[in-house]
Amino acid sequence: MPGAHASDVQLAKGISSLPKTNRAAVYTKVGEVATEVRELSVPEPGPGQVLVKITHSGVCHSDLHVMLGDWSFVRGDDGGVGGHEGVGNVIAAGAGVDPSLLGKRVGIKWLATICMSCKQCWHDRDCMCAGAKISGAGGAVGTPGTFQEYTLSDAKYVTPIPDGLDSELAAPLLCGGVTVYKALKILKLEAGSWVAIPGAGGGLGHLGIQYAKAMGYRVIAIDGGDDKKKLCESLGADVFVDFMKEGDNIVKAVRDAADGEGADAVVVVNSSARSYAQAPDFLAIGGTLVAVGIPGGSGPVTVEPAELVIRDIRIMGSAVGTRQDSVEALALAARGLVKPIVKVEDLSELTNIFKKMHKGDLVARMVVKVSQD
Amino acid sequence: MPGAHASDVQLAKGISSLPKTNRAAVYTKVGEVATEVRELSVPEPGPGQVLVKITHSGVCHSDLHVMLGDWSFVRGDDGGVGGHEGVGNVIAAGAGVDPSLLGKRVGIKWLATICMSCKQCWHDRDCMCAGAKISGAGGAVGTPGTFQEYTLSDAKYVTPIPDGLDSELAAPLLCGGVTVYKALKILKLEAGSWVAIPGAGGGLGHLGIQYAKAMGYRVIAIDGGDDKKKLCESLGADVFVDFMKEGDNIVKAVRDAADGEGADAVVVVNSSARSYAQAPDFLAIGGTLVAVGIPGGSGPVTVEPAELVIRDIRIMGSAVGTRQDSVEALALAARGLVKPIVKVEDLSELTNIFKKMHKGDLVARMVVKVSQD
Amino acid sequence: MPGAHASDVQLAKGISSLPKTNRAAVYTKVGEVATEVRELSVPEPGPGQVLVKITHSGVCHSDLHVMLGDWSFVRGDDGGVGGHEGVGNVIAAGAGVDPSLLGKRVGIKWLATICMSCKQCWHDRDCMCAGAKISGAGGAVGTPGTFQEYTLSDAKYVTPIPDGLDSELAAPLLCGGVTVYKALKILKLEAGSWVAIPGAGGGLGHLGIQYAKAMGYRVIAIDGGDDKKKLCESLGADVFVDFMKEGDNIVKAVRDAADGEGADAVVVVNSSARSYAQAPDFLAIGGTLVAVGIPGGSGPVTVEPAELVIRDIRIMGSAVGTRQDSVEALALAARGLVKPIVKVEDLSELTNIFKKMHKGDLVARMVVKVSQD
Amino acid sequence: MPGAHASDVQLAKGISSLPKTNRAAVYTKVGEVATEVRELSVPEPGPGQVLVKITHSGVCHSDLHVMLGDWSFVRGDDGGVGGHEGVGNVIAAGAGVDPSLLGKRVGIKWLATICMSCKQCWHDRDCMCAGAKISGAGGAVGTPGTFQEYTLSDAKYVTPIPDGLDSELAAPLLCGGVTVYKALKILKLEAGSWVAIPGAGGGLGHLGIQYAKAMGYRVIAIDGGDDKKKLCESLGADVFVDFMKEGDNIVKAVRDAADGEGADAVVVVNSSARSYAQAPDFLAIGGTLVAVGIPGGSGPVTVEPAELVIRDIRIMGSAVGTRQDSVEALALAARGLVKPIVKVEDLSELTNIFKKMHKGDLVARMVVKVSQD
Repeated sequence: MPGAHASDVQLAKGISSLPKTNRAAVYTKVGEVATEVRELSVPEPGPGQVLVKITHSGVCHSDLHVMLGDWSFVRGDDGGVGGHEGVGNVIAAGAGVDPSLLGKRVGIKWLATICMSCKQCWHDRDCMCAGAKISGAGGAVGTPGTFQEYTLSDAKYVTPIPDGLDSELAAPLLCGGVTVYKALKILKLEAGSWVAIPGAGGGLGHLGIQYAKAMGYRVIAIDGGDDKKKLCESLGADVFVDFMKEGDNIVKAVRDAADGEGADAVVVVNSSARSYAQAPDFLAIGGTLVAVGIPGGSGPVTVEPAELVIRDIRIMGSAVGTRQDSVEALALAARGLVKPIVKVEDLSELTNIFKKMHKGDLVARMVVKVSQD
Repeated sequence: MPGAHASDVQLAKGISSLPKTNRAAVYTKVGEVATEVRELSVPEPGPGQVLVKITHSGVCHSDLHVMLGDWSFVRGDDGGVGGHEGVGNVIAAGAGVDPSLLGKRVGIKWLATICMSCKQCWHDRDCMCAGAKISGAGGAVGTPGTFQEYTLSDAKYVTPIPDGLDSELAAPLLCGGVTVYKALKILKLEAGSWVAIPGAGGGLGHLGIQYAKAMGYRVIAIDGGDDKKKLCESLGADVFVDFMKEGDNIVKAVRDAADGEGADAVVVVNSSARSYAQAPDFLAIGGTLVAVGIPGGSGPVTVEPAELVIRDIRIMGSAVGTRQDSVEALALAARGLVKPIVKVEDLSELTNIFKKMHKGDLVARMVVKVSQD
Repeated sequence: MPGAHASDVQLAKGISSLPKTNRAAVYTKVGEVATEVRELSVPEPGPGQVLVKITHSGVCHSDLHVMLGDWSFVRGDDGGVGGHEGVGNVIAAGAGVDPSLLGKRVGIKWLATICMSCKQCWHDRDCMCAGAKISGAGGAVGTPGTFQEYTLSDAKYVTPIPDGLDSELAAPLLCGGVTVYKALKILKLEAGSWVAIPGAGGGLGHLGIQYAKAMGYRVIAIDGGDDKKKLCESLGADVFVDFMKEGDNIVKAVRDAADGEGADAVVVVNSSARSYAQAPDFLAIGGTLVAVGIPGGSGPVTVEPAELVIRDIRIMGSAVGTRQDSVEALALAARGLVKPIVKVEDLSELTNIFKKMHKGDLVARMVVKVSQD
Repeated sequence: MPGAHASDVQLAKGISSLPKTNRAAVYTKVGEVATEVRELSVPEPGPGQVLVKITHSGVCHSDLHVMLGDWSFVRGDDGGVGGHEGVGNVIAAGAGVDPSLLGKRVGIKWLATICMSCKQCWHDRDCMCAGAKISGAGGAVGTPGTFQEYTLSDAKYVTPIPDGLDSELAAPLLCGGVTVYKALKILKLEAGSWVAIPGAGGGLGHLGIQYAKAMGYRVIAIDGGDDKKKLCESLGADVFVDFMKEGDNIVKAVRDAADGEGADAVVVVNSSARSYAQAPDFLAIGGTLVAVGIPGGSGPVTVEPAELVIRDIRIMGSAVGTRQDSVEALALAARGLVKPIVKVEDLSELTNIFKKMHKGDLVARMVVKVSQD
């Protein structure tokens, strides 16, 4: 490590100098659904950093919240660059970076970096690291995101993308995919166990079905309408429970589907207060509820101690995932076991995509093409 | 197994025939705080059963609930025999019982037997076995209890009492001791972790402090008043938090005690709705709440999904324990690491004991002397 | 439980009295490969017992060892009845047995019963219970087996057979299936992990491939010859490594197959001393070796402490499984995920089957038809 | 992160400039037991690095091996600085380092840093990271160690030293302490379980006894002679087994000590081939052997598959520990539960210390005073 200098920028093979212009979509004004494409300067990688030429970036619902300033703890900046599901190639690296990273295809996710040196990091609770940086967010907790051609990231924290997985598929897996994968991974159930997924037909849910199947679980997909039914079943759901048809009967319907005993786990991937109110009742004795979605207002999980004691129910949460979780989640996709439903458009369409997202008009996970490979 | 006959009763060495009279305290009328000592006939052990000459029986708060008919799911019978913390010697056994049990000192606990052949039993969830029998309860789920000289039990389900542990100390451990031991055991924390115990100065709590220390944990005892403080500290509590003095500051007080980060676990052994309302806030990131006490009315644990996700909190319950749990809990007591505070009186004092318990006038765990060794 | 009498035999619906004659294949003389079909009397179920009318019984290599008296710890008796992979219907039950068992289809496995009341039983180490009885073995540790029309068993220890699973398929799963299922279950690997199986094309191995796939693992099947290759691949093996072709290169071949890093686990299902000698080298850093097969002579696992320390390798064993393991293993088969390759012949062919087994001429798992349903 | 320069050195309060001279003990010539104190230049912290003013450094047996060039994979350089149990204060830091580290007391251990970005790091297998640097070793895998006044280290990988723990006690815990702590931690045994420690009276062993007790385990200390007996018992060992007195009876002696059943775990902290040969036999059914010590020549663990299968024995290894392990190990010592036996001498005595170590004449862990606080 001695003798490193910040100006010691390493370039990938075929790159003779750092590019000059950087095509980026920025938030026009936080609070509004508006982005505009600008030419920014290309940042130079400092010690420990890589410069990634982004080819694809997923557009996540969290980006919308960041743009709108919905959340107090993480929000955008006016003129800031959003995006946290980016895939691209390392074209340059700063001092101290292992040169074998140059030229590699990598991903940048919600957590752009963590401090790697606090109690939470040591316990693999990346998301709780007070020194973490959020990709595509503003202020002290954020760092410019992946809606731009050239994005800086932490060389130690980028995610390797496995061969054989299209970048446009990898992008949404870096956020939604990892998140549901991790929520299922912590369950450690036996093969054949029943996992109920409220919101199974949505962005996280449709990945959850596939990951659960890849782990050997059986899936009770819960969502509403025949299109969702068709979707969920095509992805491998063993049973579909239509909450619109079942109404007040839904608890019985779920329990009946799981051998009459209830599900071994419920992974709530949507943000519905109603799902959280019902979820404990879906569970079999000894079952586990994993919270993933976060309701906008109050949507608590409420459970009587007697229920915990007499039915041996467990309640926990799961937040995104670590690099290892990401590697595992991507590896299953590279084998073709998990395939997100995506639609790719050009970066210039970003505002339109957000507008549709705001109206609830999107079906697939949206991916923007940021640059050519 | 072939050729077993119910009349093949085996007698312990020194016992020439089954005794004729059986001194028992029965519930005069369920709903009233009243017992009376009667002479009942001595039951004969059937296949797989043992007849235990009870010397000591703990008197548990659950016995009071059973006597008063407070609970819908388990209640006494008029003229029925209560008690579920019994210790005594096997004086006879029915067909098929391993003769090495004859003469042994054993315990009978809340669960007198389980079916050993259902999904719950196979998962060590003894308490959830639909075929379990409750000692000292009436109706279909109950079996006559340990407030009598001679009690039948399941040879496969009695608990061996280790040498060197007084019967009067073993008795209350068979219920309260095992229960807190198990609630702590499932935590699997590292040595030195912080465990907060609301109700630490009570019947379960004072055992919980001692078991937690025997496991290498640090204890934040939560209770009210200087007597409780003195008691908890004498039992090894590292910190005492007085909820009466702290008032609304209690969450901060508990978190401060645990290195400013909150407790790694909270084990709620009392039945206070207020304890359950506060308990999630006592926890550090990654912490676990274990419910043991069951509030009389509604006293739910309420937690926002965001709290579960962002603070990685887990919520679970624990109900009594298995035979293996009991063996482990008693073994620690036999080594002198855990010692319940007991007061012993004659079986004829049972009504007075219940009256004091009803008024909340008891300090120690009460044990009745049922017969001589 | 009071008042049970051994003569209180309960009969299943449609059964008016216990049958009189019992068609059984007995070992002519232990040490010889010879059985003969005799008519024995029908045993009457004692307290806690069921009488099972066996329709199918798998023929396991262990039966051959028992018949030949190969092992010191468990061997047959002259004129004794072997068999420990039996499936049939409960036609009668003794005193104290839950009547809901009558008429049910159940399985009898290697462990016919355990004491359910010792330290090993409490730790789910059924196979290590000193009070266990072995089905089809002689002497003090054995009990008459399933090569007979009517077999007694412990009502609490029979295995329920799920609907939709043919009895002839269920039979071999009760021994080989459960055994490999359990050996894989204890690994608790992530989905997509690499499991190498030396002996993958054999009786246990061909089931191991299928169970591993049902758990979401990737399988490196190790065996010799093109027939084995075809078989293993048809069952879902991701990679086949032919030990005959690879020779001394086998360690490299296995490690290369597993991303160049080695397998996350090796489950040795054959009894080859050579497999045990090589197995530690197949492992990746952090990998686990599970011993299942037991070499006839000495075939030790030998590992240097440096290897354990520096490569974080773990070595363990697995013996058959519990009832819960069996239920889980059968459930996966009932869903069609695991299907043993069987050949069914009449009970009268048993000697011929053993002769072929002795010569090593068998390919499929053999099942004898013992009686009509 | 942008704009970091390697020359951006941050200084702790009270430090006006980097010191000029650096008192260091270097290896005269690898292969000889000889060190000499020299004045070296003070290294300047690069990006991500801290400069630690070492006050104390433990002298470990591994340093001797490194000096003698005993091992192929890690050895000293002529004129290189050894030492890997260093404690001191951060007096300066390079670019990008969190300034809150300045002035803090920290430890430097065997692993001076890891890459934090490979599969092994992500699995908390620090010791297996191919990019790790060994403190006090030479060549590509090493970095100058703690036998010098000013040592560079990785800001993210130094170990915080808790208040209330003397530096001279902290030093040897950074290696031996963490190592035995981790080996015990992975066992996850129940309180009261029996842990046998061959070599209990030695450098690692005497810490192992104390850590095992702090975790609630019972300890069977195995060593030879009355002095060792006295030492082990004074540290809390429940039983002492003298291998010199027991001779061939040692297996029985250990098993008898553990309730006649054998130990739940054996942690082999010495490097004796004989200990490894005996260790599996010390175990109870279901027990675990953890390898820590590495015999000089061959000293394999050899076990028959039948032993693994029928006795459910597990064999694993453990190598040093992570930062989190170190924090936990030091925290127990800061509470007074673990106290290494140390002897402190000046850095100039280092050669004499190594000479005594080479002859086997040392009793306590040796610590050299490197500089004043």
